Amino acid sequence: MSSLDALFRPRGVAVLGASTKELSIGNRVVRNLRDSGFTGGIYPVHPSDAVICDLPAFASIEAIPGPVDLVNIALRADRVPEALEACGRAGVRAAIVHSAGFAETGEQGAALEARALATARRHGIRLVGPNAQGVMNGDPDVRLYASFTFTPLVAGPVTILAQSGGIAELLNLHLRRAGVGLRWYASPGNASDVDLTELLAAAADDEGTQVILLDLESVRDLAAFRDAAVRAARDKVLLVLKSGRTEAGARAVTSHTGALATGESVLDAILDRAGALRMPSVQAAVQAATAFAWQPLPRGRRIAVVCNAGGPGIVALDEACALGLEPAPLADATRAMLAASQSPYATVGTLVDLAATAGPDPFRAALGTLLAAPEVDGLVLSMVTPFFVDCDGVADAVAGMAKASDKPVIVNVMTDARWAGVVQRLQSAGVPVFEFPEEAARAMALMARLGGLRARPAIRPPEGLVDGDGLRTLFDRAAPGPDGWLSQLDAYGLLAAAGIASTPIVPIRRPEDLDLAARTLGFPLVLKADAPGLVHKSAARAVVLGIADAVSLAREAASLWARFPGAPLLAQREVSGGVEAILGVVVPAPGMPLVMAGLGGVTVESDRDVAFALAPLDAVAARRLIGSLRGRARFNGRGGGPPADLDALADAMVRLSLLAQALPEACEIDLNPVAVLPVGRGAPALDVRIRRTPG
Amino acid sequence: MSSLDALFRPRGVAVLGASTKELSIGNRVVRNLRDSGFTGGIYPVHPSDAVICDLPAFASIEAIPGPVDLVNIALRADRVPEALEACGRAGVRAAIVHSAGFAETGEQGAALEARALATARRHGIRLVGPNAQGVMNGDPDVRLYASFTFTPLVAGPVTILAQSGGIAELLNLHLRRAGVGLRWYASPGNASDVDLTELLAAAADDEGTQVILLDLESVRDLAAFRDAAVRAARDKVLLVLKSGRTEAGARAVTSHTGALATGESVLDAILDRAGALRMPSVQAAVQAATAFAWQPLPRGRRIAVVCNAGGPGIVALDEACALGLEPAPLADATRAMLAASQSPYATVGTLVDLAATAGPDPFRAALGTLLAAPEVDGLVLSMVTPFFVDCDGVADAVAGMAKASDKPVIVNVMTDARWAGVVQRLQSAGVPVFEFPEEAARAMALMARLGGLRARPAIRPPEGLVDGDGLRTLFDRAAPGPDGWLSQLDAYGLLAAAGIASTPIVPIRRPEDLDLAARTLGFPLVLKADAPGLVHKSAARAVVLGIADAVSLAREAASLWARFPGAPLLAQREVSGGVEAILGVVVPAPGMPLVMAGLGGVTVESDRDVAFALAPLDAVAARRLIGSLRGRARFNGRGGGPPADLDALADAMVRLSLLAQALPEACEIDLNPVAVLPVGRGAPALDVRIRRTPG
Repeated sequence: MSSLDALFRPRGVAVLGASTKELSIGNRVVRNLRDSGFTGGIYPVHPSDAVICDLPAFASIEAIPGPVDLVNIALRADRVPEALEACGRAGVRAAIVHSAGFAETGEQGAALEARALATARRHGIRLVGPNAQGVMNGDPDVRLYASFTFTPLVAGPVTILAQSGGIAELLNLHLRRAGVGLRWYASPGNASDVDLTELLAAAADDEGTQVILLDLESVRDLAAFRDAAVRAARDKVLLVLKSGRTEAGARAVTSHTGALATGESVLDAILDRAGALRMPSVQAAVQAATAFAWQPLPRGRRIAVVCNAGGPGIVALDEACALGLEPAPLADATRAMLAASQSPYATVGTLVDLAATAGPDPFRAALGTLLAAPEVDGLVLSMVTPFFVDCDGVADAVAGMAKASDKPVIVNVMTDARWAGVVQRLQSAGVPVFEFPEEAARAMALMARLGGLRARPAIRPPEGLVDGDGLRTLFDRAAPGPDGWLSQLDAYGLLAAAGIASTPIVPIRRPEDLDLAARTLGFPLVLKADAPGLVHKSAARAVVLGIADAVSLAREAASLWARFPGAPLLAQREVSGGVEAILGVVVPAPGMPLVMAGLGGVTVESDRDVAFALAPLDAVAARRLIGSLRGRARFNGRGGGPPADLDALADAMVRLSLLAQALPEACEIDLNPVAVLPVGRGAPALDVRIRRTPG
Repeated sequence: MSSLDALFRPRGVAVLGASTKELSIGNRVVRNLRDSGFTGGIYPVHPSDAVICDLPAFASIEAIPGPVDLVNIALRADRVPEALEACGRAGVRAAIVHSAGFAETGEQGAALEARALATARRHGIRLVGPNAQGVMNGDPDVRLYASFTFTPLVAGPVTILAQSGGIAELLNLHLRRAGVGLRWYASPGNASDVDLTELLAAAADDEGTQVILLDLESVRDLAAFRDAAVRAARDKVLLVLKSGRTEAGARAVTSHTGALATGESVLDAILDRAGALRMPSVQAAVQAATAFAWQPLPRGRRIAVVCNAGGPGIVALDEACALGLEPAPLADATRAMLAASQSPYATVGTLVDLAATAGPDPFRAALGTLLAAPEVDGLVLSMVTPFFVDCDGVADAVAGMAKASDKPVIVNVMTDARWAGVVQRLQSAGVPVFEFPEEAARAMALMARLGGLRARPAIRPPEGLVDGDGLRTLFDRAAPGPDGWLSQLDAYGLLAAAGIASTPIVPIRRPEDLDLAARTLGFPLVLKADAPGLVHKSAARAVVLGIADAVSLAREAASLWARFPGAPLLAQREVSGGVEAILGVVVPAPGMPLVMAGLGGVTVESDRDVAFALAPLDAVAARRLIGSLRGRARFNGRGGGPPADLDALADAMVRLSLLAQALPEACEIDLNPVAVLPVGRGAPALDVRIRRTPG
């Protein structure tokens, strides 16, 4: 049983601040509890009124006869702590505080909020709010409407958890218009106690929830959120709205992994790992929820697009292809069956156009054939309602075929109020209906995307690939500089210990070492100063490229020592060719390292073509991350060169992710550039920086 | 007077195929003409029925007493030619053929269509169709509804011209729902005579049209379309939907300008030049049309976002910023005035949140202050309808302030049927209302984008910059190879004549020339074979880079001559450094060269980061094109190098565009790569290919 049971399945609900005044929150909540048919006791509390909304009212919380698990509080802010005190004495286990005037208004309000929270904690009361819109539970056994909004409560499979009360209500309103019912609804306002992460974890365990619409503004505890998201998205569909997207755009651009990562990167990485889908808009979220609530996932991306008006059909097909769906490659047998059942006006190409004259029988035959065809994973239907056709019959035919199939059917109906019955027939059969052809295609594309995410194998990095103890010993021996940056030599040592290739290096402490370097590495060479705290080596002119012979080597070494007295130098074999990549690690929250991969070299700062994933990775996940880069084709020999050694790059990513997990204090790692050489020749790191959490 | 006057302003309309059968096109058209209050004569034609839809019917077109300028034909396809014959004899000037069964069905139908068209042409009848949905004109003096759809005709400023009848009707239906009226409407079906380009040109001259919604599938005559689009977008708002977007994605990727250009590139270039906006979806098109029909353009991108519920307000702000709008930087005086008029619950930050309790007065004060502030270019309002507030009063306040301002106001109202009056009050005052906060932000962003397009200076390349006669002489003297490719030497000669910099070259015909090349150019050198028809020089190993001394030069020259016997060679100074760009020209239609600019070198094929514009360009337009590249930051020194010489690159683009205009037979030009060196050092082309239209 969830610790939020008192919230979602209370035996009785009291309303403090209940009122006979129609335009008040205290009235609206009592009315909603009553009208939704709440199965427990409803107890308006009022100092003098005896009846509120036709229900007997009580003078105080203590005067209520039955058990009260939940209270809704709609009192003035300064009266909330004492009210909670009384609730605690009466054995109340959860409170929804609608009242505003707390932390959202400034310091004084924050102090009041702290006092209310302390009181609730002392009594073991779970607090939703303050400044909360409320909570609902559509479960027919409960029918709880403990909120002050207007949208009627209809039971269904979608749970709304929203930071913003406005967004919560907007989602709920449009879900109801689409004919989709509600399971849970919660908008916790200031979220001083119960927050979205806890609500998400609870919804993950709620059997009646099939789809979760989550509206986030910020996340307090990333690790807890990750765990809740992973749990929730395992058996349910998790759709996430997040505001504050563009704040990242304002950040300064530099080429450290730390600067390339934003709050959005870690959220996206968590959602990707969980198999949750981020929604681009409120409308898209509602439409996706409708599709996921009612239709099964497609097994693949091969979609039949059917229409009875060519233009909108092409629009649907176009949008579907733009979003990565493929027109189902219809088999000859399928085409023959379609042709046999259709009028001569029908055309069966990439688009299946039944023509405006098609009635129920041609629709039934076409959908039956296509949904039975093994080469079809799902069906998008875009239809107008020609006045000379039995459109209700068409709707019934479509609904019947959709119900009988285990493949998804998404419909776009373009019509006016005259044919409202067509839409209703489809919706009441659980067929999602959208007004525009693009919307149907988008919903199908999202379903296919989730299908793809679910089909990913679990991430299993090979055991024992990286020797954590060995790394630990090396790491503890390394002496970081003032900002926590390790010396180059220590950093290369850690890479080597993790099995991550870098170009061969020779440390040079004295002029006598130069000869060894030349003999070991050959020319051309690169020479770098390894001075403590020297992070931006190129900018500090601490790197010399293209040293072609022993004379130049001696000269450049002397010059570096002149500028960085006493600093050790590193000689390194110069690598040319290959595609430049960047790899990195940042740790946005303790224990949650994030691996970055991107196209490196001169383009990393201008193009910011980088992607992030939670550690650990295995080879499949690493390849997937590489595949999400816009410029990924650069690795395939498109630039005229041979295909690059992506196996080696992926292997380096896997090892890097394990290194990051083994050494949680390594808070920032940059391998930039990594030269991804032609297949079979590896992907050595040409430069590395590792930073230890300072202090 | 437009040649389509008989179509849009007929004195009388006859309906051939008029019918008493309710579910028929011939009945629907008569009914629509009648119910819309058509101001001319309506003449149903039927062999035997005397009355159709309460109107007297006539046995033949010849039997009609009044003048008939337009006929609607809803007869069987094979009867259409003879009907047009009769119409011709009766002096009809335009015909809308609804009947299907023509070219869209195959060869036999195409022959029938050709016969119908020939008949119409012989009689000077303008033909809309066949397979056409029809035509409307909302002009109160006309009120013509010569189509068989159901959406009532309401007069307004938006003209719909749509290839697809389905899209036409979908646009019309949703415009009506948004409260926006119609000017012209035409969907020409097979468009055997009157096509969208001619309709667009006519609408450009129609005073009553303010906004044109154009749905395209393909364009027959690009030059005519360009001229019509430029004319139409000069004084009106031209919004374009185009299907077939993704067909381009299926094309093979290679690095010729010709292959990088697609049908979409030329359309986008035309629309950009015209100042028209391409719409991403049908819904977006309807919403944009609503905003443009009712609200003035903003003078800039500084937008105030106002709300009475924080969450949706943040969503609107977020979307606005993501689309390039800027939160208006409110002056202290503005903030002070806002604070003085609002409750303590209101917050004035980047977002202006009046709080849910705000009634008509705070709304009026806030909008008044913001719309009067010089730092505000437009206002997006996202509002819920709290039940404890006089929301009708708020709507009236908002409508009043919007009407009194010359800045655009776009509103998002989140509510249900209970507050339908709020939406109606706003709409009837000409304030666009959208259901989701993102939609309001998107509409405002589009308005700002059009404002920006309109503010562009006219393109004026400096006169006499390029000597067209000189180029012509050189070009005519050049001897192209079998596929029309010019020799390298000729191509470099043309560049030089146009003033486009390239790396210095020395032609080498005999071994004796090598010494001159070495002395003139210095080392390192590049050596290329200039064999006829040798287009992919790198692939054919006809290019040798990095020749460091005279010995190597002689050796490589011998080796090239061994492989390409008798071919002239070109020695070229090797240029290193700079940012690699690609420039090019393709000519998708006679007389319409398209200039391409992109990020070049190894990334052009993988990233396809290229953009196209119609020639000619001037420096401003060239810089704008460069600025539209995703990776444009690469030119700004982001890769660690110095800022690149974009003035020189832009100059080369201007000259290239003039060269293309001067030599229309030069059907493909590639400058790849162009080395954009640090500021002040130029942007020489390192390689060039020019192809002459073969034959």
